[in-house]
Amino acid sequence: MNDYTKLIEDALYSYLPSKNVYEKNLIEAMEYSLKAGGKRVRPTLALEFCRLCGEVPQKALPFGCAVEMIHTYSLIHDDLPCMDNDDYRRGKPSNHIVYGEDTALLAGDALQSLAFRIMTAPETVSLAGEQACVKAVNCLSYYCGAQGMAGGQAIDLAYEDKNAPIEVLREMDSKKTSSLIKSACALGCIAAGADNEKIAAAEEYGEYIGIAFQIVDDILDVTSSNEELGKPVGSDKENSKSTYVSLLGIEECKNLVESYTHKAINALNAFEGDTSELADFAKQLANRKK
Amino acid sequence: MNDYTKLIEDALYSYLPSKNVYEKNLIEAMEYSLKAGGKRVRPTLALEFCRLCGEVPQKALPFGCAVEMIHTYSLIHDDLPCMDNDDYRRGKPSNHIVYGEDTALLAGDALQSLAFRIMTAPETVSLAGEQACVKAVNCLSYYCGAQGMAGGQAIDLAYEDKNAPIEVLREMDSKKTSSLIKSACALGCIAAGADNEKIAAAEEYGEYIGIAFQIVDDILDVTSSNEELGKPVGSDKENSKSTYVSLLGIEECKNLVESYTHKAINALNAFEGDTSELADFAKQLANRKK
Repeated sequence: MNDYTKLIEDALYSYLPSKNVYEKNLIEAMEYSLKAGGKRVRPTLALEFCRLCGEVPQKALPFGCAVEMIHTYSLIHDDLPCMDNDDYRRGKPSNHIVYGEDTALLAGDALQSLAFRIMTAPETVSLAGEQACVKAVNCLSYYCGAQGMAGGQAIDLAYEDKNAPIEVLREMDSKKTSSLIKSACALGCIAAGADNEKIAAAEEYGEYIGIAFQIVDDILDVTSSNEELGKPVGSDKENSKSTYVSLLGIEECKNLVESYTHKAINALNAFEGDTSELADFAKQLANRKK
Repeated sequence: MNDYTKLIEDALYSYLPSKNVYEKNLIEAMEYSLKAGGKRVRPTLALEFCRLCGEVPQKALPFGCAVEMIHTYSLIHDDLPCMDNDDYRRGKPSNHIVYGEDTALLAGDALQSLAFRIMTAPETVSLAGEQACVKAVNCLSYYCGAQGMAGGQAIDLAYEDKNAPIEVLREMDSKKTSSLIKSACALGCIAAGADNEKIAAAEEYGEYIGIAFQIVDDILDVTSSNEELGKPVGSDKENSKSTYVSLLGIEECKNLVESYTHKAINALNAFEGDTSELADFAKQLANRKK
């Protein structure tokens, strides 16, 4: 896809408050995780959909950065001992390992607030207009809240000790993984002032690449761990939790990935511009090897 | 002050998502803390300032409820073991005692998202207009984030093991306690479409009653704990952390409360309507005995 990384990261870091304050530690903790890398997939999707709707990609920068802040806050909270208890994230110590659990909790909370602050800053209003800003906040707050990302995590917790049937797994991944991707795609269109039909198509694309991504993850978990162990593919599971592979088998999973990728690419027909970058991106996700 | 409790609570609970979902536990956890009582001071202030600006109080309901949701999320996260580790809140088991730390964390996160969602819902836009909605989100996200409430909590953490000088204590309380009260007062004016001069005056009122409240708290901590122990007033401190009383002495604290209450009431001169309810409320806070 078009490489907007520098554009995105310059903007992202510019939104951090000054560190010349008594609460310096908090700002440093927020910065630490924001700068901890990642592929910036969500803001890139926002910028690309904005371009596809006929506007300069920059118009979607504040909204795209807001999604990245929400994504970053969710990773900080996910890593906490009361959640996944991960000491490392992308090869670096987790936020709470460096700053302590208390500051990490606050850093996540404050990143969520900052996301909504930059979406409604005077500069953002000048760039995208009041109507787009209101619509964008409403969209992102839905997809990151109880009916979106946080809801998906709650389903995960509810099925921690029991096997989730396929419809629960689907609902969980749709909320946990697809929600933010969907909102990034939608926000790109909203920034460009696109109509509801285009916004819905962008969400459809996001939904399908999100689920396909998750199924590929499950496939790679099984194939790579069995390769490492020298066991035949599909002969064991990492733990007792349901996965697409454990419920449907590898072949059916591969078919699903193909079908969802096809549906994602089909959804792009709602747009008149050049959709090849987004179509290629969907294929890359489906064919990735790690 | 005018009793808007029923109005506020009916609206507040109506914003909760349906419990007929796989993530039922999360919605129940959010509901548990939202319904755990409290005096609804912040939404009441929002409604009263809206009325003072010449509009029906109902116009500020979504914004007032949003502040209450932010307040509720902050209490849930504050009680977590990695923060204050409180098992009880208002005489009832804390959220994480009932639902577990993981769900409590998510419930706080999702309440923050829900606050911004209801501020930008189509019904809220119809009620207050797009411009007010954008301004309100920008105001609340500032006052609850790194430069507001979360920042105040971070200052508290930074001075956990050392004595904070008076200027740090003042900054901490301004952010930790006054921020949300200020934003509630401002949001009432914003809902009514008031000008920036009135918004600033409302924030000034909120700032001063917030700090006065905190100083009275410190005074009551010393006077009531010494009464219980039969010791002369002011002869000890509960712990080594700075308080207004430990830094300034009781008499100076009482003078400050009087002066700040006076300043809060003075700020109300910016409004033409009947300010007696808000003036009385400031006096009640200053004179409270527990």
